[in-house]
Amino acid sequence: MDIATIIGIAAAFGFIMVGVGSNLGAMLNGPSAIIVIGGTIASALIMNPLSEVINLIGVYKKSFVNTILVPTELIERIVNFAETARREGILALEQAVEDDDDPFLASGVKLAVDGTEPDLIMDILETEVQFVEERHKLGAQILADMAVAAPAFGMIGTLIGLVIMLKNMSDPAAIGPAMAVALLTTLYGAILANVLLNPISIKLKTYSTKELLTKRMIIEGIMAIQSGDNPRIVENKLSAFLEPKMRPSGEEDNTDG
Amino acid sequence: MDIATIIGIAAAFGFIMVGVGSNLGAMLNGPSAIIVIGGTIASALIMNPLSEVINLIGVYKKSFVNTILVPTELIERIVNFAETARREGILALEQAVEDDDDPFLASGVKLAVDGTEPDLIMDILETEVQFVEERHKLGAQILADMAVAAPAFGMIGTLIGLVIMLKNMSDPAAIGPAMAVALLTTLYGAILANVLLNPISIKLKTYSTKELLTKRMIIEGIMAIQSGDNPRIVENKLSAFLEPKMRPSGEEDNTDG
Amino acid sequence: MDIATIIGIAAAFGFIMVGVGSNLGAMLNGPSAIIVIGGTIASALIMNPLSEVINLIGVYKKSFVNTILVPTELIERIVNFAETARREGILALEQAVEDDDDPFLASGVKLAVDGTEPDLIMDILETEVQFVEERHKLGAQILADMAVAAPAFGMIGTLIGLVIMLKNMSDPAAIGPAMAVALLTTLYGAILANVLLNPISIKLKTYSTKELLTKRMIIEGIMAIQSGDNPRIVENKLSAFLEPKMRPSGEEDNTDG
Amino acid sequence: MDIATIIGIAAAFGFIMVGVGSNLGAMLNGPSAIIVIGGTIASALIMNPLSEVINLIGVYKKSFVNTILVPTELIERIVNFAETARREGILALEQAVEDDDDPFLASGVKLAVDGTEPDLIMDILETEVQFVEERHKLGAQILADMAVAAPAFGMIGTLIGLVIMLKNMSDPAAIGPAMAVALLTTLYGAILANVLLNPISIKLKTYSTKELLTKRMIIEGIMAIQSGDNPRIVENKLSAFLEPKMRPSGEEDNTDG
Amino acid sequence: MDIATIIGIAAAFGFIMVGVGSNLGAMLNGPSAIIVIGGTIASALIMNPLSEVINLIGVYKKSFVNTILVPTELIERIVNFAETARREGILALEQAVEDDDDPFLASGVKLAVDGTEPDLIMDILETEVQFVEERHKLGAQILADMAVAAPAFGMIGTLIGLVIMLKNMSDPAAIGPAMAVALLTTLYGAILANVLLNPISIKLKTYSTKELLTKRMIIEGIMAIQSGDNPRIVENKLSAFLEPKMRPSGEEDNTDG
Repeated sequence: MDIATIIGIAAAFGFIMVGVGSNLGAMLNGPSAIIVIGGTIASALIMNPLSEVINLIGVYKKSFVNTILVPTELIERIVNFAETARREGILALEQAVEDDDDPFLASGVKLAVDGTEPDLIMDILETEVQFVEERHKLGAQILADMAVAAPAFGMIGTLIGLVIMLKNMSDPAAIGPAMAVALLTTLYGAILANVLLNPISIKLKTYSTKELLTKRMIIEGIMAIQSGDNPRIVENKLSAFLEPKMRPSGEEDNTDG
Repeated sequence: MDIATIIGIAAAFGFIMVGVGSNLGAMLNGPSAIIVIGGTIASALIMNPLSEVINLIGVYKKSFVNTILVPTELIERIVNFAETARREGILALEQAVEDDDDPFLASGVKLAVDGTEPDLIMDILETEVQFVEERHKLGAQILADMAVAAPAFGMIGTLIGLVIMLKNMSDPAAIGPAMAVALLTTLYGAILANVLLNPISIKLKTYSTKELLTKRMIIEGIMAIQSGDNPRIVENKLSAFLEPKMRPSGEEDNTDG
Repeated sequence: MDIATIIGIAAAFGFIMVGVGSNLGAMLNGPSAIIVIGGTIASALIMNPLSEVINLIGVYKKSFVNTILVPTELIERIVNFAETARREGILALEQAVEDDDDPFLASGVKLAVDGTEPDLIMDILETEVQFVEERHKLGAQILADMAVAAPAFGMIGTLIGLVIMLKNMSDPAAIGPAMAVALLTTLYGAILANVLLNPISIKLKTYSTKELLTKRMIIEGIMAIQSGDNPRIVENKLSAFLEPKMRPSGEEDNTDG
Repeated sequence: MDIATIIGIAAAFGFIMVGVGSNLGAMLNGPSAIIVIGGTIASALIMNPLSEVINLIGVYKKSFVNTILVPTELIERIVNFAETARREGILALEQAVEDDDDPFLASGVKLAVDGTEPDLIMDILETEVQFVEERHKLGAQILADMAVAAPAFGMIGTLIGLVIMLKNMSDPAAIGPAMAVALLTTLYGAILANVLLNPISIKLKTYSTKELLTKRMIIEGIMAIQSGDNPRIVENKLSAFLEPKMRPSGEEDNTDG
Repeated sequence: MDIATIIGIAAAFGFIMVGVGSNLGAMLNGPSAIIVIGGTIASALIMNPLSEVINLIGVYKKSFVNTILVPTELIERIVNFAETARREGILALEQAVEDDDDPFLASGVKLAVDGTEPDLIMDILETEVQFVEERHKLGAQILADMAVAAPAFGMIGTLIGLVIMLKNMSDPAAIGPAMAVALLTTLYGAILANVLLNPISIKLKTYSTKELLTKRMIIEGIMAIQSGDNPRIVENKLSAFLEPKMRPSGEEDNTDG
């Protein structure tokens, strides 16, 4: 559960309501919403294969649910494996893998147990990580592209509203309200882009970075276990991926950044 | 057939029509369309060699027709080749290549059958892939450049309209409609850029990424076949290019991304 | 204490007050401030994990407090270590490390004293530096993202204000003041982005570059000490990290840049 | 002769005239033109050494004259050289080079004939290509920088016009025409940037890419000739630089991009 | 003396005066200037350590004074050294270095004379060049950042002016002039950014590129001298850094770029 995403979106709309006050009715307009939301989704369809746009729903939900491994727990687990491998031989790891281990870790351990060549393990795991990276980037990119499309459709709607208004200026009293409606699409486009699309795209990128970090820790760990590294060395190598203050052993903080 | 492109464009215009309503007549203006569409095409001619602009028609059509190989079928085919090569020797692949195989795959297999040095095969295929990549990038780039030019010509048209209007302000009743017409070029520029140019440019980039991925899978496969890899290893190597859930063997999903 | 940050912010607000003059009252509006400041913080929450946003307070403070090592003093210290190591052997460094030495330097020296393999020392220290770099980039990036969000929420506030104003144009005398209030969110967004967010993000990036430079100097120094380099060579190598005019030995300035 | 550049510029002005119609007089204003064109050239002088700005005239003309080698003819020529070298020895190439051969190709062949070490030939030619690349990038970059400056000076002119107009609002009838004149600099800036500067900058970049491609083909060819490659291999290697459909031997199209 | 910078700035202000005409008085406003110039400098202080902002004065002056070595003279000088080294041994270079030689060249020669290992010379000189590059980039970057801040403070000033004006609309005759004053900060911001900040930043980048080129030529030359290369080879290698038409020997132009 990513509480920050939920609080953030709720707060953003709450703060916007501070400005709206009792004028909520004036802010709501069906056709304006259809132009901006519909146009943005339509542009996502033109920009991407259908399957990616459908996948987007799942990707979008990911930003509300945090499933990233806690790195300290991951290190502990890998050091455990290293100790087992040292004590009982690498084959003993077959038993050591448990059902709730991360599947990527499990598959790496299995490769090591099977006696796969280190270079090949590296190759297989690295290729997989690269591919995961591509896939994550694509999801975040689609949302970022939609965040560009939303204000554009907002402007298209406002221009249409202005043209209609300018053609019918006989009733001066109608000009203000007509222009107000015209501006709504620009407002919707700005909110869509800056609350619901761009920030989520950035959160997905951050998640991706963190997830890739844990995947790289796993690869480093598997390689170290396979080459028979001392568990202490394994822990040291993996701890370098962490902020000093998060390191398992009460190591002193040697970076002040 | 890329149904997403067609649905997307149709939907985008449909949603825009929600805003236009019964005012379609007010939105249509021949000279405005000529300035924006003509100016955008003219700028494409200044920016690129004539041949590239002519090629663009074919490139543009590509975004409506999806011809990317299905990766799972491609893996199956390459694993087939690997099995044949293992069982009957690499020369047997000459017969195995069929007419409806992908030409890039076929030419790679032929190089392997001819006993070309692995390094040279790699070289020839890699150079070709790099070149294909350049060519794809260029097509997408031209559309992206045109997507920048379109709003610029929209603004040029609007400025011209405003200057004419401001010089002739004797009839107040004419000001509104004159300004409405002036705004039309900006509207056209925004629609051209955000519905017909920029999203298609992005779709072409996505296609290019996918096509290059399959080309890299083919290269990886050819190299593996030539070095006499076990078909199982070939399949494993190539499966790393796929999302886990798409992998041929019912492998468990080991990435949660 | 980074006096430049404090002077800069004070001066920026001072110069803005030159324009405000006696109209400070007209510039202050609670709801406008809530929309822009609240919306910007909300977007930071959507964009980042909660922990990063909380960390941001510490990161932000860093731009007011300069704790970067003075490179000339650092070089002197490392050359001292090199001399001790030459004279008394590398084990003597254990005593030489003092409490107020930089922790990163101390941990590097300890690794060398422990007889860790040079490649492993390099590995451990380099990985740590890369990670510090990532972390610094993230802090600066969050502020840069907030600097994009602030004007966006400014515009959202202004659009809301304009829509409300345009719907209620019956009293012409109220139009001016209403529009003034509407513009305040845009003003707040511009000040927030250009005084308090973007410049601090850039300062953090500069700090990060400088801190990484000293960390790289330390790595270079540790490696040189370990391979038994002559203290003179160590000094030469490290001096190359400095502007010629800052170099410890009265070396002539051999770059005019 | 690059017909596309000429047609493109003529067409762009033609389409703009569709909007201008009979109001050409209203669009022409000497001081406005001086501010925008003069300011843009002045900014180019501030941004670059005098010699580069003077060179720009020649660079600009290049976009109207296409002198890029046709790659298929170039391949034929290099394969000829390869055959001669195979048949009569590499020294025979001295006679084979003709006056109308590309000077870069000729100088490469001369290096090979002189028995220069392959690594040195590679070095000399690669350095030259890198330098040509830098030079081309600079030319295109100056035009791109000017394309940013032009609208800026357009805005400066418009702001000046607006300030003058706003200070003299006693005659309402004069406001419209005064504002029309103020807008002309923005119009000029937009046309300068989007018809005469930015597109030419992009065309120069495309030319540069193509020219560098032929230069890289020449290097690849020279290296292959020197190492005594079979002419068929040389042709294959160089053909990989071409779109399949352009390849000399009626090779099937094995990329559908 | 960089005449282009001086002519460019003078011309830019001259062309702007064409638009101002007899209205100079209307363009000058003390508080507006203070907001924009002061705010831009304040933001530079927030963005950078105090020392860098003070250094900026010297960096800025550099764009008016061209001290880049003429590459042809530099090549001649290095070839001289190569000849001396060949004829009289590398130690003879100690005498050959003269007081008005470039300090970077002199220090490189001294390293070679001292019999320093080639790899170490390379290391020391390369590190220095990289550092000079960083330093140059920083100077240009600060000006580029200020060029972004200037229009932002221009907009802040204009918004403040508009808010004040809109709150006091009782006297219609005062609206025009008040708005004129409000627009002045935007005008100042645009001029500051596009005449005095951004173009100078770009000129510094060009200088940096040229200076780094001569530094790389010097490194290449020193390495060639040290490895005892034939002076002719040295000249050839270094000439590749030059445009063909600038090369010392009347070599034909073998690039048409």
